[in-house]
Amino acid sequence: MNKYGLHGKLKATSGNGEKLASILLEASKLVSTAPGCHLYIISKDNVDENAVWVTEIWDSKEDHDNSLLVAGVKELISQAIPLLDGKPEKGQELDVLGGAGIK
Amino acid sequence: MNKYGLHGKLKATSGNGEKLASILLEASKLVSTAPGCHLYIISKDNVDENAVWVTEIWDSKEDHDNSLLVAGVKELISQAIPLLDGKPEKGQELDVLGGAGIK
Repeated sequence: MNKYGLHGKLKATSGNGEKLASILLEASKLVSTAPGCHLYIISKDNVDENAVWVTEIWDSKEDHDNSLLVAGVKELISQAIPLLDGKPEKGQELDVLGGAGIK
Repeated sequence: MNKYGLHGKLKATSGNGEKLASILLEASKLVSTAPGCHLYIISKDNVDENAVWVTEIWDSKEDHDNSLLVAGVKELISQAIPLLDGKPEKGQELDVLGGAGIK
């Protein structure tokens, strides 16, 4: 069965990219053991130093949505929101067929 | 050390998206054991049925570039090229900080 992929950008206000990335790296630890989580990767944008990308693969969109309920995740989101420059854009959803490197 | 990420789209001519994806899935098997390969995932676009996404994480850009030399990869590329609708766009390069789910 195909998996659910999501590739999305969060843009921080000027100078807050690193802080935002570190909060998201904390979140990745919390969700790594959530049901259906295969990938939760945090990257810096190569051009915009205030932008952070989150690349996720889950068994299903439902598993992704449930990850917001993992203990501690809401607290991290509430730390991240004041750092954001505007509302996050909707991420790119992918229909993951397979490949190499995920569990 | 940060890793090198690449997220890029290949667009097939009408009706060839599935064939292109299956060639790329073959390529993922070949490069999975190449030095520095952490992730090589193939996805279908959720909107354009002829578009296929390749999401890669490598130790370095050099490791990525060397993957084109892996035995069999050039043959797969030469099968894929006639299926493409125009020249591939340059993929999005990412500076991968970390997260969960890669080896």
